[in-house]
Amino acid sequence: MTERSGAASAARRLAPRLAARAAAHDRDGSFPVDDFTDLREAGLFGLMVPAELGGAGATFAAYAAVATELARGNGATALVFNMHASVTGALGAVTEELAEALGVPAEALAARDRLLRAAADGAWYAVAMSERGAGARLSQLATVYEPVDGGWRIKGSKTFCSGAGHADGYLVAARSAADPSVVSQFLVPAGEGLTVEPTWDALGMRATASHDLHLDVTVGTDRLLGGVEGLALVVAQLMPHWLVASYAAVYVGVARAAIDAAAEHLNARNLAGLPAVRARLGRADAAVAAAELAVAEAARRVDEAPGDEETNRWVWRAKLLAGTTAADVAASMLEAAGTSATRRGHPLERLYRDARCGSLHPATSDVCADWLGIATLGGDPDRDGSSPRW
Amino acid sequence: MTERSGAASAARRLAPRLAARAAAHDRDGSFPVDDFTDLREAGLFGLMVPAELGGAGATFAAYAAVATELARGNGATALVFNMHASVTGALGAVTEELAEALGVPAEALAARDRLLRAAADGAWYAVAMSERGAGARLSQLATVYEPVDGGWRIKGSKTFCSGAGHADGYLVAARSAADPSVVSQFLVPAGEGLTVEPTWDALGMRATASHDLHLDVTVGTDRLLGGVEGLALVVAQLMPHWLVASYAAVYVGVARAAIDAAAEHLNARNLAGLPAVRARLGRADAAVAAAELAVAEAARRVDEAPGDEETNRWVWRAKLLAGTTAADVAASMLEAAGTSATRRGHPLERLYRDARCGSLHPATSDVCADWLGIATLGGDPDRDGSSPRW
Amino acid sequence: MTERSGAASAARRLAPRLAARAAAHDRDGSFPVDDFTDLREAGLFGLMVPAELGGAGATFAAYAAVATELARGNGATALVFNMHASVTGALGAVTEELAEALGVPAEALAARDRLLRAAADGAWYAVAMSERGAGARLSQLATVYEPVDGGWRIKGSKTFCSGAGHADGYLVAARSAADPSVVSQFLVPAGEGLTVEPTWDALGMRATASHDLHLDVTVGTDRLLGGVEGLALVVAQLMPHWLVASYAAVYVGVARAAIDAAAEHLNARNLAGLPAVRARLGRADAAVAAAELAVAEAARRVDEAPGDEETNRWVWRAKLLAGTTAADVAASMLEAAGTSATRRGHPLERLYRDARCGSLHPATSDVCADWLGIATLGGDPDRDGSSPRW
Amino acid sequence: MTERSGAASAARRLAPRLAARAAAHDRDGSFPVDDFTDLREAGLFGLMVPAELGGAGATFAAYAAVATELARGNGATALVFNMHASVTGALGAVTEELAEALGVPAEALAARDRLLRAAADGAWYAVAMSERGAGARLSQLATVYEPVDGGWRIKGSKTFCSGAGHADGYLVAARSAADPSVVSQFLVPAGEGLTVEPTWDALGMRATASHDLHLDVTVGTDRLLGGVEGLALVVAQLMPHWLVASYAAVYVGVARAAIDAAAEHLNARNLAGLPAVRARLGRADAAVAAAELAVAEAARRVDEAPGDEETNRWVWRAKLLAGTTAADVAASMLEAAGTSATRRGHPLERLYRDARCGSLHPATSDVCADWLGIATLGGDPDRDGSSPRW
Repeated sequence: MTERSGAASAARRLAPRLAARAAAHDRDGSFPVDDFTDLREAGLFGLMVPAELGGAGATFAAYAAVATELARGNGATALVFNMHASVTGALGAVTEELAEALGVPAEALAARDRLLRAAADGAWYAVAMSERGAGARLSQLATVYEPVDGGWRIKGSKTFCSGAGHADGYLVAARSAADPSVVSQFLVPAGEGLTVEPTWDALGMRATASHDLHLDVTVGTDRLLGGVEGLALVVAQLMPHWLVASYAAVYVGVARAAIDAAAEHLNARNLAGLPAVRARLGRADAAVAAAELAVAEAARRVDEAPGDEETNRWVWRAKLLAGTTAADVAASMLEAAGTSATRRGHPLERLYRDARCGSLHPATSDVCADWLGIATLGGDPDRDGSSPRW
Repeated sequence: MTERSGAASAARRLAPRLAARAAAHDRDGSFPVDDFTDLREAGLFGLMVPAELGGAGATFAAYAAVATELARGNGATALVFNMHASVTGALGAVTEELAEALGVPAEALAARDRLLRAAADGAWYAVAMSERGAGARLSQLATVYEPVDGGWRIKGSKTFCSGAGHADGYLVAARSAADPSVVSQFLVPAGEGLTVEPTWDALGMRATASHDLHLDVTVGTDRLLGGVEGLALVVAQLMPHWLVASYAAVYVGVARAAIDAAAEHLNARNLAGLPAVRARLGRADAAVAAAELAVAEAARRVDEAPGDEETNRWVWRAKLLAGTTAADVAASMLEAAGTSATRRGHPLERLYRDARCGSLHPATSDVCADWLGIATLGGDPDRDGSSPRW
Repeated sequence: MTERSGAASAARRLAPRLAARAAAHDRDGSFPVDDFTDLREAGLFGLMVPAELGGAGATFAAYAAVATELARGNGATALVFNMHASVTGALGAVTEELAEALGVPAEALAARDRLLRAAADGAWYAVAMSERGAGARLSQLATVYEPVDGGWRIKGSKTFCSGAGHADGYLVAARSAADPSVVSQFLVPAGEGLTVEPTWDALGMRATASHDLHLDVTVGTDRLLGGVEGLALVVAQLMPHWLVASYAAVYVGVARAAIDAAAEHLNARNLAGLPAVRARLGRADAAVAAAELAVAEAARRVDEAPGDEETNRWVWRAKLLAGTTAADVAASMLEAAGTSATRRGHPLERLYRDARCGSLHPATSDVCADWLGIATLGGDPDRDGSSPRW
Repeated sequence: MTERSGAASAARRLAPRLAARAAAHDRDGSFPVDDFTDLREAGLFGLMVPAELGGAGATFAAYAAVATELARGNGATALVFNMHASVTGALGAVTEELAEALGVPAEALAARDRLLRAAADGAWYAVAMSERGAGARLSQLATVYEPVDGGWRIKGSKTFCSGAGHADGYLVAARSAADPSVVSQFLVPAGEGLTVEPTWDALGMRATASHDLHLDVTVGTDRLLGGVEGLALVVAQLMPHWLVASYAAVYVGVARAAIDAAAEHLNARNLAGLPAVRARLGRADAAVAAAELAVAEAARRVDEAPGDEETNRWVWRAKLLAGTTAADVAASMLEAAGTSATRRGHPLERLYRDARCGSLHPATSDVCADWLGIATLGGDPDRDGSSPRW
């Protein structure tokens, strides 16, 4: 509990600094380098690193609280941080029992420990998973790897790589050239062999620098995560929360930021007395409060029983509620604030665009609704779901 | 915690029995006498009675969980039980410090204890507060009382008195004939002097028997709650949750019951595979889960800091979310299930009507939204709210 | 144009009389016999009968206007009238060219003329199409017919037969005992061989008397519509508007009645000044006005180009908009009016229940949305639609 | 009718050319100069100019159809064109009777005719009405004018002047320096004395170049519209449709463009078969079709009975429906299309931003709902409306 409040408080203290820089990064689509310096100095890169490796050993619930607070400052910064938290959180969650069950050799665990220690010391990692055409579906990747002298050669192109060009390392999923059914994950260090193609120029979350990343790189043996090939899908199934729920916490923060910005704007113009405005803010407040509870509940259950059926339902609920609430609330807050809030540089102008993105991250709101519906009807989403986007 | 789960589990066990009787009571608008026998036998009338007086000494959170479970069986039963819980909960919450501060004499505390012990022994109380024209506003009552030999004479007419004719006692608010600014509350025992006029014949929650109650009755001295006149408004201000939030838990149960009924109906007809049906159930499930969290959070805060500004905001959020969610969800579930579920006697037919009532109980959804909006904008709902219905 | 305004004006004049009787019929689930006497006396049974056969020769647009006006009085009466209008409208729309193309013999046309003349003289017809299990899908009927001496013997059971026991004749769809792929339609006169089982006891539209109808009856040769077997599906495809759009006009009237009732209720209680109330009525008014335009546009196109692809899209739009608008508006109006409007006998209490039924009539709102979506995406709803309820 | 279809057809033919340029102008916030060359060459500047002055003498309904078609190409272009149509439409609508009633001298009518002839010959006019602080409320303007030798000297600053720096003339409202209660309108020619301050850099409708316009200019006597001072408010009251409804037609086009873009995007990616996608497109199609009918109906009534009570209600309905529908539909279409449609340069990315602006133009959606609600409740919006933004 102590570490949790500590990290969330640190994030809350940082939020105004992030907010002050948000407009410029949004305008230019530039990466918030200073935000990440702040995050490093606040020790947040070690948030998910186990205490014995020098980190804060935070729970998923603690992560969610941090992400929401950061997103109240800048949703884009929180989204990129989310990727780092996913990588370190998933690595840190591999227990000795699990490692043994998966056949992870000791030297792979040692390599894992080095990566986590580095994070606790201030390194941060990005995720290079999606590909054009394949989306985030591991089963359809075109990036391949093969063993070479002293390591692995990886070749392919990734898209939507948040933080591309700024991270210290990249979690890369690739399939074996020898056996296409084998998908493995590597932690590729920044440097030669990686080329960033600046393709990211989007409606919202512009400062994430989610550019394309081209890989033609050789990495050391110890960069194969888990030390044995073919673990990518296993890990994905064990930790679906990192692929879905971690977004939700971000969008709750974005939605709350929209309410805050609208209240400030309306008070400054003496429009707080308008009944229509009050109704909009009241309903928005209730909706965001409920979404925040859903995210917290999902996170609590992820900590208690990760991957469980009921946990997964909470993860989908959180994702669905956060995504739809953020978009609806930001649209309503902009309408409450009026034309003067549509000027570029006004927080609501940016938040309206950022907020729209939450439902679109995988699993989309429509997919979450489908999965939840199947589960509510007693079915099995894995078996019955159409969800061709996942 | 023990008592909480205990009571909630008991309520959960009772729910199917309540559900089995719900259709008949709804059809006839008859009071669910057997349900109340079940509640008595399960010891639930003592739920809010302090342990030292023979009760379960439950928290508000425990009450909320019980109310939701009962409402999954029959919302009307849960609504009437809510009234009893309000009376015993408010009486039980009067601490010695508060009693001293309010100038409550010792014999009044002893009288209070007798009423609570009776509840623990199986008595239950209804609330006779609203009047035609005045609604639930204490400041506009027409019922008057005056001192007579050996007690108080009370005369007037109440409306929307859930459980009228069935309760063992009635919490009656009245104003002093001598000084109309003084409003007091009495616990009037069932019996002579009370006449039930069967006016309740409504869209939903038909089994609450919320008839008119005419009073022309003399009660003993010890039936003036608190032992001193004029405490009604003070108590109302100290415990707004009993006037607002306690409904919310009921409607979460009603909403969940609608989802359950739709799922059962659709599975029985092999319609669970329809994408539109799945989307409806998925979105409904997420919305109800969020409303349930909001009710639990409001209840938790009521236990921690009753009457606090932030507690009250949570109370309004819970009321708003539960009321709107129940109505929306029941309407969508009926649409998912189709025409065959509109047949009288089908649970969804009743739930669609019951669910519409939640937003209408005071404070209505529109009033809650207004108050929340004022608070979100930094104002004071007491000062700035228009809310002429409260 | 003259006849249109004439009939619509007549309907408007009748509406208050229908409204005055609506509460009692809704309470008892009794058929509005007096309403139908009024309709007869106003000459409305001949509305869709060609002028040369003694009727008003009204357009579909004129019908829609009449249905909306009647529904402002009593939606149930309008729904039953809709069935009669469907039968006479479809019969009247069979041109000589079409009859020739379908191979309809002269004596069948003469029989058709007799039925229409009878309607112009005051007879009215109900529809006995749906069956348990099959719904309204012609392809899955269990009712069978076979040729017998001097006519046809028909045996089976129908459900949702609005006006059962009150009509002068019933349009019955049945499949040939000899060749199950052949589906024909008969106009079965009231009388022996028809048994009404009073199964209709529903949430809304209670006065339609949409009971089960059991048939074990022999009818004359001339009662086979079209005089040749197997025309049922052909006619259904030529006139989908009668199966879908005619409901829409009814629910626009129901929705408008809800606004009227709410305005009257709120003005009587001096609550018209509440901002939340005004916002609800304003948004409701705009939505209903738009739905009414959509119904009128669909009707106009049905008159111009019945069965055309674009006409059908308008028919689905009208059905979707009228159904969803009626349910949403009635729910909002009841919320605006408050608890006192939930008393049985209050128009809003009934309208809230009636309004929910619109989306459930085939094609349901979800099915219409699916078909419209397919068409908008350039597909063919007949080929690509799942819509298993149609 | 001929001229109407002619102009609407011309607009429809131009739309693809406008659409092809829209992304670049949106990106740079640059004025679509080539679009306006196209409009001039198509003769559309004379659309609202009476035939006897060389124009098309179009109805308001014809204008609405043109505006919708243009907006399917580029909403920003349509919005600026709307301003020109407002000026020429209002000038052209001043009949001889009205002129006489207002005391307009003959030379003022001649001046009016010159302005309209010039428009028919290819000139176009912008509107410089709003001011910071005053919004569009004529009663609170700070721009002043005074008589000088040979004309009028006008001094002040305008904001939200769509087309600033590109129009041939500007409709400027100003108050008399001598008598602040007198508000007059001038048609100020482009040229010296006008300075554009490039302040427009907004969320949506970026290509309108709605910059600030500073005036310190002397114009000829004949530039006072109507030839007598103080006519501005009179004209505003006679033609509220030009201040409210003309936006509505634009946003219907924007909403339809969003559906078209989503359909194209989804078909190109073979995603048209997803049920959730189909449901989104189907519901969007119905909503936009209804909004389009409401705009057409409002326009028809404006032509028949401008300024009438019922006409104004239709104007508010059209504005409310078009504004809310455009925002909702664009948000849903972007969600249907997914992340790849959020890339800058994708039509949906722009349309999502453009569409949000419709509800914000005066009268806002919330104000329209309030006015409609008052009217529905039998009140008088002029007397009872709060609407502090108008």
